[in-house]
Amino acid sequence: MKACFEASKIWMQLPAPKRGEIVRQIGDALRAKLEYLGRLLSLEMGKILPEGIGEVQEVIDMCDFAVGLSRQLNGSVIPSERPNHMMLEMWNPLGVVGVITAFNFPCAVLGWNACIALVCGNCVVWKGAPTTPLITIAMTKLVGEVLEKNNLPAAIFTSFCGGAEIGQAIAKDTRIPLVSFTGSSKVGLSVQQTVSQRFGKCLLELSGNNALIVMDDADIKLAVRSVLFAAVGTAGQRCTTCRRLLVHEKVYDSVVDQLLEAYKQVKIGDPLEKGTLLGPLHTRASRENFENGIKVIKSQGGKILTGGSVIESEGNFVQPTIVEISPSADVVKEELFGPVLYVLKFKTFEEAVEINNSVPQGLSSSVFTRSPEVIFKWIGPKGSDCGIVNVNIPTNGAEIGGAFGGEKGTGGGREAGSDSWKQYMRRSTCTINYGSELPLAQGINFG
Amino acid sequence: MKACFEASKIWMQLPAPKRGEIVRQIGDALRAKLEYLGRLLSLEMGKILPEGIGEVQEVIDMCDFAVGLSRQLNGSVIPSERPNHMMLEMWNPLGVVGVITAFNFPCAVLGWNACIALVCGNCVVWKGAPTTPLITIAMTKLVGEVLEKNNLPAAIFTSFCGGAEIGQAIAKDTRIPLVSFTGSSKVGLSVQQTVSQRFGKCLLELSGNNALIVMDDADIKLAVRSVLFAAVGTAGQRCTTCRRLLVHEKVYDSVVDQLLEAYKQVKIGDPLEKGTLLGPLHTRASRENFENGIKVIKSQGGKILTGGSVIESEGNFVQPTIVEISPSADVVKEELFGPVLYVLKFKTFEEAVEINNSVPQGLSSSVFTRSPEVIFKWIGPKGSDCGIVNVNIPTNGAEIGGAFGGEKGTGGGREAGSDSWKQYMRRSTCTINYGSELPLAQGINFG
Amino acid sequence: MKACFEASKIWMQLPAPKRGEIVRQIGDALRAKLEYLGRLLSLEMGKILPEGIGEVQEVIDMCDFAVGLSRQLNGSVIPSERPNHMMLEMWNPLGVVGVITAFNFPCAVLGWNACIALVCGNCVVWKGAPTTPLITIAMTKLVGEVLEKNNLPAAIFTSFCGGAEIGQAIAKDTRIPLVSFTGSSKVGLSVQQTVSQRFGKCLLELSGNNALIVMDDADIKLAVRSVLFAAVGTAGQRCTTCRRLLVHEKVYDSVVDQLLEAYKQVKIGDPLEKGTLLGPLHTRASRENFENGIKVIKSQGGKILTGGSVIESEGNFVQPTIVEISPSADVVKEELFGPVLYVLKFKTFEEAVEINNSVPQGLSSSVFTRSPEVIFKWIGPKGSDCGIVNVNIPTNGAEIGGAFGGEKGTGGGREAGSDSWKQYMRRSTCTINYGSELPLAQGINFG
Amino acid sequence: MKACFEASKIWMQLPAPKRGEIVRQIGDALRAKLEYLGRLLSLEMGKILPEGIGEVQEVIDMCDFAVGLSRQLNGSVIPSERPNHMMLEMWNPLGVVGVITAFNFPCAVLGWNACIALVCGNCVVWKGAPTTPLITIAMTKLVGEVLEKNNLPAAIFTSFCGGAEIGQAIAKDTRIPLVSFTGSSKVGLSVQQTVSQRFGKCLLELSGNNALIVMDDADIKLAVRSVLFAAVGTAGQRCTTCRRLLVHEKVYDSVVDQLLEAYKQVKIGDPLEKGTLLGPLHTRASRENFENGIKVIKSQGGKILTGGSVIESEGNFVQPTIVEISPSADVVKEELFGPVLYVLKFKTFEEAVEINNSVPQGLSSSVFTRSPEVIFKWIGPKGSDCGIVNVNIPTNGAEIGGAFGGEKGTGGGREAGSDSWKQYMRRSTCTINYGSELPLAQGINFG
Repeated sequence: MKACFEASKIWMQLPAPKRGEIVRQIGDALRAKLEYLGRLLSLEMGKILPEGIGEVQEVIDMCDFAVGLSRQLNGSVIPSERPNHMMLEMWNPLGVVGVITAFNFPCAVLGWNACIALVCGNCVVWKGAPTTPLITIAMTKLVGEVLEKNNLPAAIFTSFCGGAEIGQAIAKDTRIPLVSFTGSSKVGLSVQQTVSQRFGKCLLELSGNNALIVMDDADIKLAVRSVLFAAVGTAGQRCTTCRRLLVHEKVYDSVVDQLLEAYKQVKIGDPLEKGTLLGPLHTRASRENFENGIKVIKSQGGKILTGGSVIESEGNFVQPTIVEISPSADVVKEELFGPVLYVLKFKTFEEAVEINNSVPQGLSSSVFTRSPEVIFKWIGPKGSDCGIVNVNIPTNGAEIGGAFGGEKGTGGGREAGSDSWKQYMRRSTCTINYGSELPLAQGINFG
Repeated sequence: MKACFEASKIWMQLPAPKRGEIVRQIGDALRAKLEYLGRLLSLEMGKILPEGIGEVQEVIDMCDFAVGLSRQLNGSVIPSERPNHMMLEMWNPLGVVGVITAFNFPCAVLGWNACIALVCGNCVVWKGAPTTPLITIAMTKLVGEVLEKNNLPAAIFTSFCGGAEIGQAIAKDTRIPLVSFTGSSKVGLSVQQTVSQRFGKCLLELSGNNALIVMDDADIKLAVRSVLFAAVGTAGQRCTTCRRLLVHEKVYDSVVDQLLEAYKQVKIGDPLEKGTLLGPLHTRASRENFENGIKVIKSQGGKILTGGSVIESEGNFVQPTIVEISPSADVVKEELFGPVLYVLKFKTFEEAVEINNSVPQGLSSSVFTRSPEVIFKWIGPKGSDCGIVNVNIPTNGAEIGGAFGGEKGTGGGREAGSDSWKQYMRRSTCTINYGSELPLAQGINFG
Repeated sequence: MKACFEASKIWMQLPAPKRGEIVRQIGDALRAKLEYLGRLLSLEMGKILPEGIGEVQEVIDMCDFAVGLSRQLNGSVIPSERPNHMMLEMWNPLGVVGVITAFNFPCAVLGWNACIALVCGNCVVWKGAPTTPLITIAMTKLVGEVLEKNNLPAAIFTSFCGGAEIGQAIAKDTRIPLVSFTGSSKVGLSVQQTVSQRFGKCLLELSGNNALIVMDDADIKLAVRSVLFAAVGTAGQRCTTCRRLLVHEKVYDSVVDQLLEAYKQVKIGDPLEKGTLLGPLHTRASRENFENGIKVIKSQGGKILTGGSVIESEGNFVQPTIVEISPSADVVKEELFGPVLYVLKFKTFEEAVEINNSVPQGLSSSVFTRSPEVIFKWIGPKGSDCGIVNVNIPTNGAEIGGAFGGEKGTGGGREAGSDSWKQYMRRSTCTINYGSELPLAQGINFG
Repeated sequence: MKACFEASKIWMQLPAPKRGEIVRQIGDALRAKLEYLGRLLSLEMGKILPEGIGEVQEVIDMCDFAVGLSRQLNGSVIPSERPNHMMLEMWNPLGVVGVITAFNFPCAVLGWNACIALVCGNCVVWKGAPTTPLITIAMTKLVGEVLEKNNLPAAIFTSFCGGAEIGQAIAKDTRIPLVSFTGSSKVGLSVQQTVSQRFGKCLLELSGNNALIVMDDADIKLAVRSVLFAAVGTAGQRCTTCRRLLVHEKVYDSVVDQLLEAYKQVKIGDPLEKGTLLGPLHTRASRENFENGIKVIKSQGGKILTGGSVIESEGNFVQPTIVEISPSADVVKEELFGPVLYVLKFKTFEEAVEINNSVPQGLSSSVFTRSPEVIFKWIGPKGSDCGIVNVNIPTNGAEIGGAFGGEKGTGGGREAGSDSWKQYMRRSTCTINYGSELPLAQGINFG
C-alpha cells in the first residue's frame, strides 16, 4: 500500500495519453492470453467457458475504450461574466482508487474500474474475492509485467487476496480517496459509512432484483430465449440476472409453457464442456443459500413450477427453478443469488411498471413489446426506475459503451462507459483573473 | 409533504421546456422585487445591502440559466456493438428533492438547488434556517403565486420553517430520493448516514477552510483588496470565506502591513447603511462562538495582530481579526464561522500547496501570482485539492456558470452550473433491440 | 456597415453572460409586443394569425434559450501528451454575421440566427426580404431600443431593406466572415461561391422537397391531420412544407379519400380572421408561379385530384391542390412554393425510403407507423437522408431545441438549438507550454 | 470506385464498435511495420528519419484514438416541448469519403481522415500525391490485408495514384458526399466549387502562413530552439512551418543573433542519416520555386541574413534562409513552400497580433511569453485568428487529441481530434411522437 501510494505521485504526472499507451499494452497482453484466462476463470468461478472468455474479452474491450478516453478526459472552458477572467473546469486524478470485487465477475468488474482509474491517473489497489485468488494473481502478474517493461513501478497496480479484514483496511485508509465496491447492499452500506467517516468517496454496485416484463404484443420466442439467458446464465449469479418475470395475463400461459419446455433442454454439467448451459454454484455456501431460499419461498406461498432442488453429485449443482408467487411476498423483494425465477402475472403496463419499481433494488429491467408507446414510456419519467432499462433484450449482457450501475439499493455508482470516468477524478472550478481589475460576480461592490 | 409528493406526478410529466417557462416567470417575479428582497435579506441575515441584493440577483441569474437548461438536459445516443440495437442514455426526474439551507445564504443556495431541481422535473421541499423565516416565507409566496397563475399546484414548491426535527424528517422520508444539505460537516455526515440507510442520495455542501496564497511575484494591491473582501465580507460567515492567508516570506511583511492598514478602514455598523463593510454576526450564539474561538486560538499560540474582541453594543458585532499562527496548530484545521483570518508564512510554492491541502475541508482556494507555471501547476494534479481553485481573485464570489462545491470534508456535491443538473436526475442506460435476432454483448453464444 | 464593424469591437469584448442579459431584454421587449407583432407579420406575409403569433413566439423562445447558452458556450480542456503542457479548445466570436432571410419566415429565421450570433459575441447585419419591410423595421427598432437603453451602440444590430444588390454587397464584404443565407438552392449556391472567393464562410438553408410516408400500420387519422397542416399550412410556403405524400398501397385509397375530405373543409380567406386555415400566396409572382407549376405538372402526366386553380378574387389566393403523379416525373424533384401536394404509392418501406431520398434536396421528412423496427430504421444509416427526420408528426413545425437544417441541396447549415452556435464562432486549438522543456508531439527528436 | 460504393452499404451497417475493431487491427499492422514505413516515407518524401517515423506513429496514434471513438460517436436525446414526444439528434455515416492528400504528409493526413471516416461508417477513396506512390501503395496493401482477414471487401479502402484528373473525378463524383482536400488555397477553392455544384461537402486544409511571436519577456533559448524546428523542420514544407518570425524590438538583436548561430549548426544532407536536420526539397520544381521566391523577396526589399541559395549537388538541397523584410511586402502574405523565414520587428503585443492576423491564411501561430495576460489575450477574442494558437511551443507539431485546421484562406476544415468526426457524418434531428395526440411546436393551433 505504501509502494502504491508512492507510485501514485509518478503515475498522476504522466500525461494521460501516455497512461493510455500503457493500458493499450495491458489489453494486448490480455488478448494474447484470452483463451487461457477464460478457461482459468471458468474453472475457478464455475461459469461456462463462453461466459469465461466473454468476461476476459470485456476487459480487453475496456482497455481499447480507455486508450481512446485517455485523450478525451476533457474539462471545460466556461464563459466568465467578468472581463479578463477565464473560467475552467479541470479534472485531476484522485491518487489511489480501491477496488473491491466479488466472485461472480472476478475479472470484468476489475476491468471496468481499473482501466478507467488508470487512464484517469490513479493507482489501483484491488481486493479480489477470497474464493478467486488464481484469477486475481494471473491478472496482477500480467499487468505488473507491462508496467515493468515500461520502467514503471508495478505497485501502480497492487492487489490483495483475502477477506473482509482487507476490505475494512481499504475502507479505512485515508490514502484511498475513492473506494469502488461491488457486493451486497448490506456490506456496501457499511463500507460507505466507514469511507464517509473519513471523508472519502464510494462507488457502489450492490444488489439487483431485476424484472423482465413480457407484454401481450411481445415476440414470445425472443422473450423466452432472453429469459433463459437472463435467469439461468452464470447459474443466476449475475447482479443483472433476471429474478422476476412479469407476464401479461393474455400471454401468461403461453410464455410459462414455452419457458418450462426450454428449461428442460438446459444441459447441466462441467462448465468447460461444450454445450453446457448451467454450471455449478460457486461454493457450498451458495448451494446452502439456495436450499434455504427455496424453503422460504415455499413458506411464503411460492409454487415451484420446475426445479427447486439441489443436485446430489460432486460440485454445487442445483436445478434451474421457476416459481409462481405473489408480487407482495417478502421473499420477492430480496436477491436470492442462484437460478431461481419468480413468475408473476399482470394486467396493464402501468401495473407491471409498479411491480418492477416496488423492490428496494434498482439495477436492471427489461420489457418485451412491439409498441413504440410502451417502449418510450418504459424509458421515460413514469417508466422503470432502474439504472439499466432494456427493450427486447435480457436484463443482463451490458455493453461497455454505456454506464453500468443502478439506483436505490443498488448504490448509485456507474462504471464502464459514458462519463463514468468523472467519478475517478476530482473536479475543480477554476477562475483565473488575468487583468488588473477586481470585478466581483453578481455585480457586487465591496469597499 | 403529501401534497408535494402528489404534485410531483404532474410536474415530472410536464415537458422540460414548459417547466423552464415557469422558472422564467419565477425569475421575473423576483426581478420585480429585487430591491425589496435584498433589503429583507440584509435585515434578517445581517449581511450588508450590496451583498443582500447580490444574493437575490444570483437567484435571478439561476432562473435565467435554468430556462436555457430546460432545453438542454440532454441524454445520449451511444453506438451499440450489436446490429439493430440502439443504446440511449436517458435522464429522468427523481420526484421530490429536499433542500436544507443555512442562515448565511438563505436565498442563493435555495436558488442553486431549486432552479435546477425544478427544470429537471422535481418538486422541491425546502427547509430554510430557523433564524431566517421571513426570507423563506417571502420566497415561497412568490414562487407559489407564479405556480398558481399557471394553474399548477403550489405544492410543487413546498417549504418549512423549523429546526433539526424537520431536517430529520426530510432525511428519513423515503418519498425524497435526494436531499441537498448545506451546513456543517458534522451534521452533514449524520444526514448522509440517515439518507443512505434508506438508499437515498445526498448532495452535500459542508464546511470550508479556505486558503489564499500570495506568491512573491503577486500584485500585492490586488491581493490585499481580495483578502479584505474574502475575510471580512459577510462578516466571515461565507462557506468560501478566506480563513487562512499564506504569504511568501519575501512579501510577508509588506502584505501584512497593508492588510492591517486596510482593516483599520473597515466601517462596522448597520448593514443597510451605505458604506458599511462589516455588519453583525448572525446571532448571539455566533458571537459566543467567536469569543470561544479567540480563546482557543490564544491557547494554541496564536498572536492577535488586530481585532480579537467582541464589540460591546446592541447587535452581535465583533472586530475583524487577524491572527499570526503556526499552520500545525489544531485550531487552524477547523472552520471558525466569523471574521478571523490566520496568517501563515511559507518559503516555496510546493510548501504553500501542502499547507493548503493539509486541512480536512476542500472547498475553495486561491493563489495570487504572475507566473504561468505557478498558475497551471496550481490548477493541475499536484495543485490545490479543492473544488474551487482560483487565481488572482478571492476565495469567494463564485459565478453560477461553474459548478460550486468542494472535495473531502466539504462533501463532494456540486451546485449551480456545469453538469450539476445530473445530480437532480436519475440516469438510465437503455438498450433497445428493434430487430428480430438476439445477439449478445462481448460476442457470447448462449444456447 | 462601418458602424456595425466598429461596434463589433465593443460587443465581442463584453463577457458572454452580459450579452445574454441583453438578449434576455430583447426577448422581454418582444414578449410585450407579441400580439401586435404577430398581427403585423400576418398582415405583411399573409400567413394566418396563429402562425404569425407562433413565429414571433419562436423568436422569444430563442431569446430565452440563448440567455442560458451565454453561460455555456464552452470550450474544452483536452489532455496533452506532453508534460507541463495544457491543451485548450477555445471558441471566440467571428465579428460580424450577415443574415439574409426570406419572405416566408420574416422573423423566426432572423431569430434563430441573431439570438445565437449575438450571445456568441457577433454583431448582426440583417437583410430581410424586400417584400416584408415592416416587420424588418419593427424588429430592428425593438432591438435597437434595448441596446441603447443599455448604453450600447444600436449598430450592433444593423438591418437593410432591399433586394439582391444588398445581398451581393453582404456576400462580397470581407468584414463579414459568416453569411447565413435562407432562400433558393440556386441563389444560395451563388452566394456561397462569392463568399468562398474571399475566404468567408456560409451557413445555408436552401430548398426542401419534403416527403411524408404513411405506412400500412399508421394511425391514419393522425397522418391525415398532419398532412393537412404540413401541406396547406402557410399556404405551402414553408421550406418544410410537405410536398410529397408517399402512401403504402394497402392504405392508399383510404388515406387519399380522407385527405380529399379534409381539403374540402379548409377555410380559405383573410389570414387575420378566426378559423381561416389558408391565406393568400405572398405575391402576384407566387401566384403566377403556381399557375405555371400546374401546367408543367399536367404536361408531365400529373392528375389533379383536387384544386389546381387560382381563385379569382382580390389577393393571391389559390386552391389547395393534390396531384397524383409518378415519382419519376421531373417536376417532383423540384420545389414548387405553394399548396401543391404530390401523392405517390409504394409497396415496401425500402422503396419509400428510396423515393424519399431520390430528390436533390434533403431538408425534412416524416414517417407514420406503429412499428419500432420501421422507426429505428428510418432514423438510422439506411433511412431518411434529410436533416429533419420525423415520426408520427408533420414535416414542419420544428422545435428550437434541435438543430434546424438539411443535407444535400438544402445546403448543410444548422440553425437554432443543439451545437449550432459553433458555426457562429471560430474555434482554436491552443497548446500552452508552461514548463521550461520542449518535448515534441509523436515523440519526435529534433536537433 | 464502383466496388467502393457497393462496399459502403456493407460497411455502414456494421456496428461502429466492430468498425473500431478493424481500425485497431490496422493500427497493429502499422505498428509492426513502423520502422520500415518510416524509412520508406523518409526516402520517398525526403524528410529526415525521425520525422518519417513520427509521421507513421501519428497514424498509429490516430487508430488507437479512433477505436475509443467508435463507442463515443454520440448523438443526443433532447427534451421536447411536446408531451409524449422524444427528440433525438442522430449521427449517421455519409457513405464514401474522398481524401486527397499532398506530398508533404503522405501518410499522416490520410490517417487523420481515414481513421475517423472509417469508424464513422464511411468507405474511403484516397488519392495520394503523384510523387509519393510507394507510400500510397504500402498503406493501401496493409489496410487491405486487414480488411480481407476480417472477410470484408478491400474496396472499403480504395486508393488511386495519379494527378489532377483523378482529383477532378473525385470532386465531380456524386457518390462521394464529402471530399477532404489538403493542398493549396487555389486548388482547394476550385475543388470546393466543383463539389458544391453537385451539393457535396468539402473539408479543406489549405495554405498556412504561420507567425511566431517572441515577446520581450520570453525564454529566448526556448524560442530559438522552437523557431529552428518550426522553420527548418521538414525543409520548411509543413503547412504549419513557421514562415514569419515577429520579434519584440527589445530582444530583436539577441534573438536574431542566436538564430543565425543555430542555423550555422544545421546539418544538411541525407535524411536517413543520423544527425541530419535538413534534407532536400521534395522535387526539382520545389527547388525552382525556392529560387524564384528568393528573387521576388529581394525585389521587394528583403535582406538575406543567411542562406538564400540552392546547393549545387545531387538532390534538391537548398540553404535554410532568414530574411529581414517589412511586414507590408506582398511576398510576406504568400506561402513559399521551403525553409525561408521572414524576420519582422514589432513594438507592442497589439501590433504583433495585427501583423499575425494580416495575412489571408489562418492556420497556425505561436507566442513566446511569460505573462499570463499576454497568454490569455492571445487565445481570446482579440488574439490570434488562427485555428492553432500556441504558447511557448513552435507553430508545428500538433497533437492528435485536438482539432487540426485553420480559418480564412486555410479553408475552415478540422481533422483528427475533438469533434472533427462530426464532419464525416450526417446529422439528423428526429422528433418521435409516441402518443396519439398532435400538439404543435410554439403552441400553434391548426384546424
